[in-house]
Amino acid sequence: MDYSHMCPKYETAAELLGKKWSGLIIRVLLGGPKRFKEIKEQIPDMSDKMLTDRMKELEQSQILKRNVYPEMPVRIEYELTEKGLGLEPVIQSIQDWGEQWC
Amino acid sequence: MDYSHMCPKYETAAELLGKKWSGLIIRVLLGGPKRFKEIKEQIPDMSDKMLTDRMKELEQSQILKRNVYPEMPVRIEYELTEKGLGLEPVIQSIQDWGEQWC
Repeated sequence: MDYSHMCPKYETAAELLGKKWSGLIIRVLLGGPKRFKEIKEQIPDMSDKMLTDRMKELEQSQILKRNVYPEMPVRIEYELTEKGLGLEPVIQSIQDWGEQWC
Repeated sequence: MDYSHMCPKYETAAELLGKKWSGLIIRVLLGGPKRFKEIKEQIPDMSDKMLTDRMKELEQSQILKRNVYPEMPVRIEYELTEKGLGLEPVIQSIQDWGEQWC
Protein backbone atom coordinates (compact mmCIF):
# COMPACT_ATOMS: atom_id res chain seq x y z
CA MET A 1 0.00 0.00 0.00
CA ASP A 2 1.21 3.49 -0.82
CA TYR A 3 0.44 5.80 2.08
CA SER A 4 1.80 8.91 0.38
CA HIS A 5 -1.54 9.64 -1.20
CA MET A 6 -3.34 9.55 2.12
CA CYS A 7 -1.17 12.28 3.47
CA PRO A 8 -2.51 15.71 2.47
CA LYS A 9 -5.60 15.83 4.70
CA TYR A 10 -3.89 14.22 7.67
CA GLU A 11 -0.87 16.49 7.29
CA THR A 12 -2.99 19.63 7.01
CA ALA A 13 -4.91 18.75 10.15
CA ALA A 14 -1.87 17.59 12.14
CA GLU A 15 0.21 20.62 11.20
CA LEU A 16 -2.55 22.96 12.35
CA LEU A 17 -2.89 21.20 15.70
CA GLY A 18 0.86 21.01 16.13
CA LYS A 19 1.39 24.76 16.13
CA LYS A 20 2.23 26.09 19.54
CA TRP A 21 -0.85 27.47 21.37
CA SER A 22 -3.39 26.48 18.70
CA GLY A 23 -4.69 23.54 20.71
CA LEU A 24 -5.02 25.65 23.83
CA ILE A 25 -6.89 28.44 22.06
CA ILE A 26 -9.31 25.91 20.60
CA ARG A 27 -9.76 24.30 24.00
CA VAL A 28 -10.58 27.63 25.62
CA LEU A 29 -13.14 28.32 22.88
CA LEU A 30 -14.72 24.90 23.39
CA GLY A 31 -16.03 26.55 26.56
CA GLY A 32 -18.08 28.95 24.44
CA PRO A 33 -17.58 32.26 22.56
CA LYS A 34 -14.99 34.55 24.14
CA ARG A 35 -13.59 38.03 23.73
CA PHE A 36 -9.88 38.46 23.02
CA LYS A 37 -9.26 39.57 26.60
CA GLU A 38 -11.04 36.53 28.02
CA ILE A 39 -8.93 34.14 25.94
CA LYS A 40 -5.80 35.98 26.99
CA GLU A 41 -6.75 35.68 30.66
CA GLN A 42 -6.93 31.91 30.34
CA ILE A 43 -3.56 31.66 28.58
CA PRO A 44 -1.51 34.37 30.29
CA ASP A 45 1.86 32.98 29.15
CA MET A 46 1.05 33.74 25.51
CA SER A 47 1.92 37.19 24.13
CA ASP A 48 -0.76 39.41 22.58
CA LYS A 49 0.99 39.24 19.23
CA MET A 50 1.13 35.45 19.30
CA LEU A 51 -2.54 35.23 20.19
CA THR A 52 -3.43 37.66 17.40
CA ASP A 53 -1.39 35.68 14.86
CA ARG A 54 -2.84 32.35 15.88
CA MET A 55 -6.39 33.69 15.87
CA LYS A 56 -5.90 34.96 12.31
CA GLU A 57 -4.59 31.57 11.19
CA LEU A 58 -7.47 29.76 12.86
CA GLU A 59 -9.93 32.16 11.27
CA GLN A 60 -8.35 31.58 7.84
CA SER A 61 -8.60 27.83 8.40
CA GLN A 62 -12.28 28.34 9.25
CA ILE A 63 -11.77 26.84 12.70
CA LEU A 64 -13.15 29.94 14.36
CA LYS A 65 -15.17 32.96 13.33
CA ARG A 66 -15.15 36.53 14.51
CA ASN A 67 -18.49 38.03 15.50
CA VAL A 68 -18.76 41.81 15.63
CA TYR A 69 -21.63 43.25 17.66
CA PRO A 70 -22.37 46.90 16.79
CA GLU A 71 -22.71 48.09 20.36
CA MET A 72 -21.07 51.05 22.03
CA PRO A 73 -18.26 50.26 22.54
CA VAL A 74 -18.22 47.64 19.80
CA ARG A 75 -18.04 44.06 21.07
CA ILE A 76 -16.03 41.39 19.25
CA GLU A 77 -16.30 37.72 20.13
CA TYR A 78 -14.53 34.67 18.79
CA GLU A 79 -16.46 31.46 18.36
CA LEU A 80 -15.63 28.01 17.03
CA THR A 81 -17.25 27.02 13.74
CA GLU A 82 -18.73 23.57 13.23
CA LYS A 83 -15.34 22.56 11.81
CA GLY A 84 -13.66 23.86 14.96
CA LEU A 85 -16.13 22.16 17.28
CA GLY A 86 -15.29 18.90 15.48
CA LEU A 87 -11.80 19.13 16.97
CA GLU A 88 -12.97 18.38 20.50
CA PRO A 89 -12.40 14.58 20.31
CA VAL A 90 -9.11 15.11 18.45
CA ILE A 91 -7.69 17.45 21.07
CA GLN A 92 -8.94 15.18 23.82
CA SER A 93 -7.19 12.16 22.29
CA ILE A 94 -3.91 14.08 21.94
CA GLN A 95 -4.25 15.28 25.53
CA ASP A 96 -5.00 11.77 26.83
CA TRP A 97 -1.97 10.33 25.07
CA GLY A 98 0.25 13.20 26.27
CA GLU A 99 -0.90 12.73 29.87
CA GLN A 100 -0.09 9.04 29.76
CA TRP A 101 3.21 9.14 27.91
CA CYS A 102 4.88 12.57 27.75
CA MET B 1 -9.12 28.75 34.64
CA ASP B 2 -5.54 29.09 33.53
CA TYR B 3 -4.88 26.72 30.67
CA SER B 4 -1.20 27.63 30.34
CA HIS B 5 -0.21 25.01 32.83
CA MET B 6 -2.00 22.26 30.94
CA CYS B 7 0.07 22.93 27.89
CA PRO B 8 3.40 21.13 28.09
CA LYS B 9 2.18 17.57 27.58
CA TYR B 10 -0.37 18.49 24.97
CA GLU B 11 2.15 20.65 23.11
CA THR B 12 4.83 17.96 23.16
CA ALA B 13 2.44 15.40 21.76
CA ALA B 14 0.85 17.71 19.20
CA GLU B 15 4.19 19.02 17.95
CA LEU B 16 5.46 15.49 17.42
CA LEU B 17 2.36 14.50 15.45
CA GLY B 18 2.41 17.74 13.49
CA LYS B 19 5.81 17.13 11.91
CA LYS B 20 5.58 16.28 8.27
CA TRP B 21 5.66 12.49 7.65
CA SER B 22 5.68 11.46 11.32
CA GLY B 23 2.03 10.45 11.29
CA LEU B 24 2.49 8.42 8.12
CA ILE B 25 5.57 6.60 9.43
CA ILE B 26 3.67 5.69 12.60
CA ARG B 27 0.69 4.55 10.58
CA VAL B 28 2.86 2.28 8.44
CA LEU B 29 4.41 0.79 11.59
CA LEU B 30 0.96 0.19 13.09
CA GLY B 31 0.88 -2.60 10.49
CA GLY B 32 3.74 -4.34 12.31
CA PRO B 33 7.56 -4.17 12.45
CA LYS B 34 9.19 -3.10 9.18
CA ARG B 35 12.62 -2.72 7.65
CA PHE B 36 13.72 0.71 6.43
CA LYS B 37 13.20 -0.35 2.82
CA GLU B 38 9.67 -1.54 3.52
CA ILE B 39 8.69 1.75 5.15
CA LYS B 40 10.22 3.61 2.22
CA GLU B 41 8.21 1.55 -0.26
CA GLN B 42 4.98 2.60 1.42
CA ILE B 43 5.90 6.30 1.45
CA PRO B 44 7.80 6.70 -1.83
CA ASP B 45 7.44 10.51 -1.91
CA MET B 46 9.63 10.88 1.18
CA SER B 47 13.41 11.15 0.71
CA ASP B 48 15.78 8.68 2.40
CA LYS B 49 17.30 11.51 4.42
CA MET B 50 13.91 12.70 5.65
CA LEU B 51 12.91 9.17 6.64
CA THR B 52 16.23 8.68 8.46
CA ASP B 53 15.81 11.98 10.34
CA ARG B 54 12.21 11.27 11.33
CA MET B 55 13.03 7.75 12.45
CA LYS B 56 15.79 9.09 14.71
CA GLU B 57 13.41 11.62 16.24
CA LEU B 58 10.74 9.00 16.79
CA GLU B 59 13.32 6.69 18.35
CA GLN B 60 14.50 9.49 20.67
CA SER B 61 10.87 10.14 21.65
CA GLN B 62 10.54 6.42 22.40
CA ILE B 63 7.73 6.07 19.87
CA LEU B 64 9.62 3.36 18.02
CA LYS B 65 12.53 1.07 18.72
CA ARG B 66 15.20 -0.37 16.48
CA ASN B 67 15.73 -4.11 16.63
CA VAL B 68 19.01 -5.48 15.31
CA TYR B 69 19.06 -9.19 14.42
CA PRO B 70 22.62 -10.57 14.18
CA GLU B 71 22.08 -12.51 10.97
CA MET B 72 24.18 -12.50 7.81
CA PRO B 73 23.52 -9.95 6.43
CA VAL B 74 22.40 -8.18 9.59
CA ARG B 75 18.69 -7.44 9.70
CA ILE B 76 17.33 -4.23 11.26
CA GLU B 77 13.64 -3.74 11.95
CA TYR B 78 11.71 -0.80 13.34
CA GLU B 79 8.83 -1.45 15.69
CA LEU B 80 6.44 0.75 17.63
CA THR B 81 6.85 0.77 21.39
CA GLU B 82 3.83 0.65 23.69
CA LYS B 83 3.93 4.46 23.71
CA GLY B 84 3.87 4.44 19.91
CA LEU B 85 1.05 1.91 19.70
CA GLY B 86 -0.95 4.23 21.97
CA LEU B 87 -1.01 6.74 19.11
CA GLU B 88 -3.38 4.66 17.00
CA PRO B 89 -6.61 6.32 18.25
CA VAL B 90 -4.96 9.76 18.12
CA ILE B 91 -3.89 9.41 14.50
CA GLN B 92 -7.27 7.97 13.60
CA SER B 93 -9.08 10.94 15.15
CA ILE B 94 -6.86 13.43 13.29
CA GLN B 95 -7.42 11.51 10.07
CA ASP B 96 -11.20 11.40 10.58
CA TRP B 97 -11.38 15.12 11.21
CA GLY B 98 -9.12 15.84 8.21
CA GLU B 99 -11.27 13.69 5.94
CA GLN B 100 -14.39 15.50 6.98
CA TRP B 101 -13.11 19.06 7.01
CA CYS B 102 -9.82 19.60 5.15
